[in-house]
Amino acid sequence: MEKKERKPVYYSEYLQLDKILNAQQPESEKEGIKADDEMLFIVIHQAYELWFKQILHELEIVRKIFNQSNIHHNTPDIYNSVHRLKRVCKILEVAVMQMGVLETMTPLDFLDFRDLLRPASGFQSIQFKMIEATLGLHYEQRHGKAYYLSQLTPSDVDRVKQAEHELSLLVLIDKWLARMPFVNNKEYWGDDNNKSAFWTKYRDAYTDGLSEAEKQNLMVFDSIFINTTDYPVGRSFCAEASRNAMFIMLYRDQPLLQLPYELLTILLEVDEQLSMWRHRHIHMVQRTIGKRVGTGGSTGAEYLRGAADSHYIFKELAELTSFLLPRHMLPELPKSLIDDLGYKQ
Amino acid sequence: MEKKERKPVYYSEYLQLDKILNAQQPESEKEGIKADDEMLFIVIHQAYELWFKQILHELEIVRKIFNQSNIHHNTPDIYNSVHRLKRVCKILEVAVMQMGVLETMTPLDFLDFRDLLRPASGFQSIQFKMIEATLGLHYEQRHGKAYYLSQLTPSDVDRVKQAEHELSLLVLIDKWLARMPFVNNKEYWGDDNNKSAFWTKYRDAYTDGLSEAEKQNLMVFDSIFINTTDYPVGRSFCAEASRNAMFIMLYRDQPLLQLPYELLTILLEVDEQLSMWRHRHIHMVQRTIGKRVGTGGSTGAEYLRGAADSHYIFKELAELTSFLLPRHMLPELPKSLIDDLGYKQ
Amino acid sequence: MEKKERKPVYYSEYLQLDKILNAQQPESEKEGIKADDEMLFIVIHQAYELWFKQILHELEIVRKIFNQSNIHHNTPDIYNSVHRLKRVCKILEVAVMQMGVLETMTPLDFLDFRDLLRPASGFQSIQFKMIEATLGLHYEQRHGKAYYLSQLTPSDVDRVKQAEHELSLLVLIDKWLARMPFVNNKEYWGDDNNKSAFWTKYRDAYTDGLSEAEKQNLMVFDSIFINTTDYPVGRSFCAEASRNAMFIMLYRDQPLLQLPYELLTILLEVDEQLSMWRHRHIHMVQRTIGKRVGTGGSTGAEYLRGAADSHYIFKELAELTSFLLPRHMLPELPKSLIDDLGYKQ
Amino acid sequence: MEKKERKPVYYSEYLQLDKILNAQQPESEKEGIKADDEMLFIVIHQAYELWFKQILHELEIVRKIFNQSNIHHNTPDIYNSVHRLKRVCKILEVAVMQMGVLETMTPLDFLDFRDLLRPASGFQSIQFKMIEATLGLHYEQRHGKAYYLSQLTPSDVDRVKQAEHELSLLVLIDKWLARMPFVNNKEYWGDDNNKSAFWTKYRDAYTDGLSEAEKQNLMVFDSIFINTTDYPVGRSFCAEASRNAMFIMLYRDQPLLQLPYELLTILLEVDEQLSMWRHRHIHMVQRTIGKRVGTGGSTGAEYLRGAADSHYIFKELAELTSFLLPRHMLPELPKSLIDDLGYKQ
Repeated sequence: MEKKERKPVYYSEYLQLDKILNAQQPESEKEGIKADDEMLFIVIHQAYELWFKQILHELEIVRKIFNQSNIHHNTPDIYNSVHRLKRVCKILEVAVMQMGVLETMTPLDFLDFRDLLRPASGFQSIQFKMIEATLGLHYEQRHGKAYYLSQLTPSDVDRVKQAEHELSLLVLIDKWLARMPFVNNKEYWGDDNNKSAFWTKYRDAYTDGLSEAEKQNLMVFDSIFINTTDYPVGRSFCAEASRNAMFIMLYRDQPLLQLPYELLTILLEVDEQLSMWRHRHIHMVQRTIGKRVGTGGSTGAEYLRGAADSHYIFKELAELTSFLLPRHMLPELPKSLIDDLGYKQ
Repeated sequence: MEKKERKPVYYSEYLQLDKILNAQQPESEKEGIKADDEMLFIVIHQAYELWFKQILHELEIVRKIFNQSNIHHNTPDIYNSVHRLKRVCKILEVAVMQMGVLETMTPLDFLDFRDLLRPASGFQSIQFKMIEATLGLHYEQRHGKAYYLSQLTPSDVDRVKQAEHELSLLVLIDKWLARMPFVNNKEYWGDDNNKSAFWTKYRDAYTDGLSEAEKQNLMVFDSIFINTTDYPVGRSFCAEASRNAMFIMLYRDQPLLQLPYELLTILLEVDEQLSMWRHRHIHMVQRTIGKRVGTGGSTGAEYLRGAADSHYIFKELAELTSFLLPRHMLPELPKSLIDDLGYKQ
Repeated sequence: MEKKERKPVYYSEYLQLDKILNAQQPESEKEGIKADDEMLFIVIHQAYELWFKQILHELEIVRKIFNQSNIHHNTPDIYNSVHRLKRVCKILEVAVMQMGVLETMTPLDFLDFRDLLRPASGFQSIQFKMIEATLGLHYEQRHGKAYYLSQLTPSDVDRVKQAEHELSLLVLIDKWLARMPFVNNKEYWGDDNNKSAFWTKYRDAYTDGLSEAEKQNLMVFDSIFINTTDYPVGRSFCAEASRNAMFIMLYRDQPLLQLPYELLTILLEVDEQLSMWRHRHIHMVQRTIGKRVGTGGSTGAEYLRGAADSHYIFKELAELTSFLLPRHMLPELPKSLIDDLGYKQ
Repeated sequence: MEKKERKPVYYSEYLQLDKILNAQQPESEKEGIKADDEMLFIVIHQAYELWFKQILHELEIVRKIFNQSNIHHNTPDIYNSVHRLKRVCKILEVAVMQMGVLETMTPLDFLDFRDLLRPASGFQSIQFKMIEATLGLHYEQRHGKAYYLSQLTPSDVDRVKQAEHELSLLVLIDKWLARMPFVNNKEYWGDDNNKSAFWTKYRDAYTDGLSEAEKQNLMVFDSIFINTTDYPVGRSFCAEASRNAMFIMLYRDQPLLQLPYELLTILLEVDEQLSMWRHRHIHMVQRTIGKRVGTGGSTGAEYLRGAADSHYIFKELAELTSFLLPRHMLPELPKSLIDDLGYKQ
């Protein structure tokens, strides 16, 4: 790094503040209408878009990591992924709190310029849709699909479609979970070609813990973890991936499983923060526009509520929790397996 | 407002996202160095600058309000000011929390590109300096004055200087406090041309409450509130303004004093949030660069600590609290004064 | 206040720390089971109950204020109410954030002692139910009514019932809104005995602003604000109260309406914070117990979601926003009315 | 776990709410003085003490872990410690935010009951002093030592003294760092009995990076990392511990170093959160009592500022950052060492 020869860097040039700070042109100003809060409206949306860009930057790095055909545990890959997803969560926490700034705009103050914005709508944030797609939201699962196509320019529709066609984090995590190296341990797998020795024991322990009224849960258990060579109907995780995710949750104390456990946890945290953001967004919209339609013609808060309820990406991972057994009921791990899960030293 | 004839507004055009989202050009990329975190470094500083722009927008509105030679209480002016300063506080709360995102960048990851940024420094944020100046920080009070001049381009020095030469909020608030209409009430002021009837009583009550050891406080009391026709040495608030601020704090329940009390409170809150921001900034810098000098050559955390301790703008208002008496010791207000402080109905 | 004769106060005695810090007896300890996280489980619930006590303390003060047959605007009553409700919101913000501490308890760690708690459940928090009742939640609106009766001891059922039979804040606010003094202004009311002059004009302006597709909104408008001598079906606010709430929202800049506007705003904020709390609670429960039934036999997250969607107390106030007109379309206020809404001076 | 035979657990009994909710007896009530805010004052301090109890519970677990003469990396010990310290940070975040609730109490409202509390003071919180002592604050480092002894009952002084005489986390972490297993690697250590091969190379690289003006830094470098068989004067970390902490920071990507790195990071975070808490406490005190002396006779905000500046426990770890080299300047690790730092599989 030849420090001496580089041109000195100046703060405002480095940050391209001439672009950033000259990108606010209120519609009300163009019309000669006094609406002092339109500046806030523009600035806060720009701040959101900056953060969305950063989130996409981080997710893209994580996606590339999991897109490798194999990820050796001794590389910093999983560590790096966890680190970046934690950052995504921190950003989303700021995004949630930031909503409080917009809530300082009263409904009446918004009405001063609201009509001038039609039909623009936060709904048209391509980056937000790309974040959802990168995480794993399919077009088919989108709340208000038809409506959404009608609101975007063709080139923007294309960008979202393209993001939807790449392998999402959801898909990549499923594949990565299915490849966990510990399943190759002989004692984990056992002799029987079709059943894992560990899972036979776990299923027995699980069955023991069920009361009469809960016996039907066993069918669900089997449909997720056992009876399948392919993806269970309606699920994004194959049985192998679900079993391994569960194993990670149960034995997260083992060195090799610590980072994978952090990863699963942080993915659920991303979902939760997105949900908190949507929920707070709903409140803000309800307070600002009541039951009116949104500027883009959406049903406003109703639309958002639909999205908030249906756009959980890693839902299936969250649900595995239902099948956890307390530690004192867990099958003892064979020594060779414990060994395989440890550090070298 | 002729809605029909306006060109439809599209989200990404309205927000000028082509500028906002294309203003990130990492130095490391130019050099072909892998430094994935430089994007975060750029984006978060841009987000800060957006917020600083918004804060300046709000402060400018408030400054204009107080720059009027008279502000009648029946106009929405004070209400509007309080509202805008509350928003400034909310933004500063986000700014404080946002620091947590930067703290996800580890010292080692920062070192990957830190040398490439020299001599750029957050110190060169003109907008932040303008915020301080608009609130009331004088050039003479700036920590590290000489240093700061050497770091900015001449045109940036000019912008800050100009902001420093306008009437600051601190100056305007002092004048506004000195003009409070209730001082014209006969019974408040009393017959004596030199002393307010109310303040004679308040001083007596204050004196009664002092223990022997505290008797010297009376001299301070007098130097702030009483013995002066001009500004007490080293103070930004004249005696009249200090007395009226105190009166507002004591009788904030009276209708006419409610908004002025909110205003004084929110000014202290602005100071507190700025201090929290500086404090958190110090921690972040210490964690990221330890005791090294900053990229701009400042002494890093040391410089920030100096600024954090000395840049309180409304310090004198905060200190008035020391002279409050408990309600049961307060002089009773004359009826005509209570009347003057009420609603018409 | 005779300071000298009082017994000196000592921190730990004043706070009764012998009680507070000796009230944690983990069930797991009684059973000789190692479950290090049960302490957290106990402590956080106790912290919640302390805050609930404080919230009830504040709400009770506010309820007493509004239970007065008349509240003169020149008393500190409304100011005091707003102040206390703001504090309630701050407490609820802490309550929401506090959930993040409980989320540090992993599902597996909870399973170590979960079975020992049966059938205890957060559902049995009487104070939380009393908060809901004090605000205005009727027994009939409670999600899972029958279930709830079955879970409480008879004396606890009585406490909640009693709270439900007192005049709630919702009821008291409706009555207070209906009594607003400005409705007595001749020019506000006009000559016609049945119609307010102001509202005739407002209705006209509202009608003008509706597009063809929105014409049906007028029926809703009339059902809420106009066509009624009694409470519109299914509504907690009478037409007079709704009209006055709306008037307050529209002319909040007028001195006499500033505090009432703050009050309406903070009531909505209380609802929002309670909703955020419920929402975050749902996430925490889902993460910790998945889709299992709660320890008390409730359907866990499902129950909470039901409550989160239906327990908005001041919903009708929030909905009024839908009928706001932009400032430039507002009827001009008669001078005598503006006078009535001002300060004396 | 024999579920059937246990007595059913009821929420209010489990949480001992009879104790918790009957431990608030305002002094103002005893005196027949109206002071509605004293309840808040009591409740918030009790909530703090509950959290302090929880923090001590977690720290005690961590202390026990590090008090073991050896901690094998394949046990869940370090994982558990990091997990618990993260929880401590989350609690401290709540503690910081909680200060905002107390800030809703105005100075005047505090004066209604302030004199009744003398000489009680938050200064007398034994648990807080025990937290500081458990982390590693020595009696000698305490700001205002003499003062503090005079304020506590003899039995409370004893409790703090006892906590100060146990091995603190600071001491234990130093010992644990000095025992890191990777130092036994032959290639790390090299042939020379007195110098580590790695550190010879690192020192060379560090020296190369220094400009003329910075050459003196090398002396500091040597005094911390090299020239010592014992503890460098004034330092809590021995050279071995400092070297290993540094090595962990530099190669945190290696599996064996990931958790140790998390641990070091979270210890700094604990310090930062404590500092934020003290800082916000200072503001709250300044706003509430101005420059008066505290109820216990301390100099209020001045005392707190002293403590805030001098009570950093893991300061030396934070300072190591100054000696980090960018990745591209790091000595390459020998293969056998990389192997030693990896997973078995």
